[in-house]
Amino acid sequence: MDRRSLEDVLSEAKSPVELLRNSQIGPYAFPGVPAEFTNWRDEQRAWRESCVLFDQSYHMTDLYIEGPDVKRLLSDLGINSFEGFKKNNAKQFVACNHDGYVIGDAILFGLEDDRVSLVGRPTAHNWVQYHAESGDYDVKVERDERYAANPEKRRRLYRYQIQGPNAAELLEKLNGGPLPQVPFFSMYEINIGDRKVRALRHGMSGQPGAEIFGPWEERDEIKGIIVEAGEEYGLRQVGSRTYATNTLESGWIPSPCPAIYTGEEMKPYRQWLPANGYEAMASLGGSFYSERIEDYYFTPYELGYGRFVKFDHDFVGREALEEMADAPQRRKVTLVWEGEDVAGVFGSLFEREGLPAKYIDLPLSNYATLPYDRVEKDGRVVGVSTYTGYSYNERAMLSLAVVEEEFCEPGTEVVLLWGEEPNSSKPTVEEHRQVEIRARVQPAPLVEFARTAYRSS
Amino acid sequence: MDRRSLEDVLSEAKSPVELLRNSQIGPYAFPGVPAEFTNWRDEQRAWRESCVLFDQSYHMTDLYIEGPDVKRLLSDLGINSFEGFKKNNAKQFVACNHDGYVIGDAILFGLEDDRVSLVGRPTAHNWVQYHAESGDYDVKVERDERYAANPEKRRRLYRYQIQGPNAAELLEKLNGGPLPQVPFFSMYEINIGDRKVRALRHGMSGQPGAEIFGPWEERDEIKGIIVEAGEEYGLRQVGSRTYATNTLESGWIPSPCPAIYTGEEMKPYRQWLPANGYEAMASLGGSFYSERIEDYYFTPYELGYGRFVKFDHDFVGREALEEMADAPQRRKVTLVWEGEDVAGVFGSLFEREGLPAKYIDLPLSNYATLPYDRVEKDGRVVGVSTYTGYSYNERAMLSLAVVEEEFCEPGTEVVLLWGEEPNSSKPTVEEHRQVEIRARVQPAPLVEFARTAYRSS
Repeated sequence: MDRRSLEDVLSEAKSPVELLRNSQIGPYAFPGVPAEFTNWRDEQRAWRESCVLFDQSYHMTDLYIEGPDVKRLLSDLGINSFEGFKKNNAKQFVACNHDGYVIGDAILFGLEDDRVSLVGRPTAHNWVQYHAESGDYDVKVERDERYAANPEKRRRLYRYQIQGPNAAELLEKLNGGPLPQVPFFSMYEINIGDRKVRALRHGMSGQPGAEIFGPWEERDEIKGIIVEAGEEYGLRQVGSRTYATNTLESGWIPSPCPAIYTGEEMKPYRQWLPANGYEAMASLGGSFYSERIEDYYFTPYELGYGRFVKFDHDFVGREALEEMADAPQRRKVTLVWEGEDVAGVFGSLFEREGLPAKYIDLPLSNYATLPYDRVEKDGRVVGVSTYTGYSYNERAMLSLAVVEEEFCEPGTEVVLLWGEEPNSSKPTVEEHRQVEIRARVQPAPLVEFARTAYRSS
Repeated sequence: MDRRSLEDVLSEAKSPVELLRNSQIGPYAFPGVPAEFTNWRDEQRAWRESCVLFDQSYHMTDLYIEGPDVKRLLSDLGINSFEGFKKNNAKQFVACNHDGYVIGDAILFGLEDDRVSLVGRPTAHNWVQYHAESGDYDVKVERDERYAANPEKRRRLYRYQIQGPNAAELLEKLNGGPLPQVPFFSMYEINIGDRKVRALRHGMSGQPGAEIFGPWEERDEIKGIIVEAGEEYGLRQVGSRTYATNTLESGWIPSPCPAIYTGEEMKPYRQWLPANGYEAMASLGGSFYSERIEDYYFTPYELGYGRFVKFDHDFVGREALEEMADAPQRRKVTLVWEGEDVAGVFGSLFEREGLPAKYIDLPLSNYATLPYDRVEKDGRVVGVSTYTGYSYNERAMLSLAVVEEEFCEPGTEVVLLWGEEPNSSKPTVEEHRQVEIRARVQPAPLVEFARTAYRSS
């Protein structure tokens, strides 16, 4: 077993950027679920037009934290306010480093008043666990690793989302009556078959819906009931090829580079992090290149988390964020890629001479765990594009980007560079040439309904 | 358990064509192997430029036949000659119906003088097994089902191919010395680690190589040795997404519609075939449409098996084939699709109005078990195109087609219709519009090397 730390690995690498750009790990994995149930166009269409079942039981890490100091721990690390946070509340938890750059975000479930779970990519989890173990907190933590890092290939919980315009009706049918009226991102109980199941009122695809969870052993039973009941509502199960593309419509950036590779203050954390964890293994890819890993970090404002920042408590990074709060900020936008240019990338597959453009896999087009592409205006870098794929609902290639404020006006034309120069040694990277793709800036989330109704309550 | 027969299913269906066109089964499955190891462009490139490991342990059915009458059984059913066939010989076995249309083909391994196996899609197997069980033959048959139809998810044998220009050197390194000089499609023994392993001299990608097989329990050990030894030869493992595209270069048509759905003489066979087998479940898809299932059948001459037809023995279909032998025949060709038109199909994904063209999945683009597309010249159907995908080596979309002789001249321009009209109810079929794609006729196999050297010995 490799007992080295991330810090050890970094000390042997040329730089954090070189380490991550040449990581042999591919894009973030969505295991445990078939690639397609019907086909990805149909599955995407369903979350806009009828409803879908997302099986999220496999790809996220769950960290359970329990004890009298749970709230103090979270409050010391999160930008969020924990005023009044209690059982059945939920939050998008965001943690920053001392300089106010995002380490990670995760969904925080208030399971009991003194017991919570964090669910998502493991970056925030690791930071919280580090403090739980090294700080003066009376808490106990337990991890339930995502499938890709889970040798036993079993989880504690199944986790399903039911989303789309018909989701509410389907949930009522399952429940055998109206759903409890709770605020957005609050939890309640719902009947599914003979069981009481916990649910989070959620709307990942920009439509009302729920995330439900319960014991792993009940996963087939519960799914079976949902799928059968969903038939009359046009329910589609969403395959692993399609699942992550829903965020292109709903506007959440899943893949910020964790702001942990630099700084003396973060060194003890890097010494605690293992040499084979997410932070050491994640692959960095795309046309954006800087020797400074700091240029890959984001502030919470840039990721659209400004509304979560609450100075009602002390937390790591507070001082830095107070300074940033009123300064100009890059902003999160959606880029709508010019279809003609994307078709040109496919056209390059048929040129007999020279190298084709980097292949665009559809519908999810990321070829690294942390995708970073250059966004240019008049030849100058004005932002980075971070998560890319195709939306059948929008009939467009979309990416989620962070762009300088003056270029955020909807309709602004920018240029995105697609492909790496030089090509990195990632296994997902074939020899290719870099190409320019025109794109137009639009709001994130792109979907009008999501933009107005998603966060209303 | 469904005890009905294919004949029962057909009696309830509007027609064989309607049954198969609306089957809910997708394209033929390649389970058990990761989708990609590096990436599909790189994996395709490897079989042309270095070498590859194809893991064929999962997708094919094995039928073992043993006993004093093995050769008589095969000889009564196969178009091939069995003169002198013995242990360590192998053949591409082809069986026809009474009218001389192909039921199926499979690779026949002479394991012992009186014991053989048939390996492939199960159509030929089923026909042979039916006769073994119902006819007057002293043979015993045992099936080892392909993974998709195998509830235990274990096989008797692993089956690997090592192919590509470096394959011979790698095999010699593994063997610890020169390989036995045996004719093409003969079997020999090779050392791998401490084990003696049986090998077939084979060249599936149009390059010299071998197919090796041995006990299932040894699969990880043997693969590990090959992969490690292969490193210096640029060996790539080929993922399930890429594997079947090698046939587009080597020119074998994997998916003829079994000629069993019609005819009184075949009725007892249809009554023997189950309601949930390959023949009842296979999906038929594409722009070629005829109400008559007979229009989907192929003769051995059309599939390029004319050289296998030997009138040195009696066999089912002999009389019909003798009549056909000198008549004009459609011929197997490769269609090289016009890249501009293929890029246009991708371009249709970005049109805001109307329906896009049927999505072209890359690199393997079949959306049915039995893909059948119309090939036209001046608006008239002159052939069918049956297996479609992209070759990074040729930088082209290719399909294997059967075309009227007068249009087989290399370079002949034809038009292929892509997409179904009307759209069938197959889950893989999204709503789409049919489009025309220009294509040029080329030989099959397309690869010059394969065309000249593949069958030389």
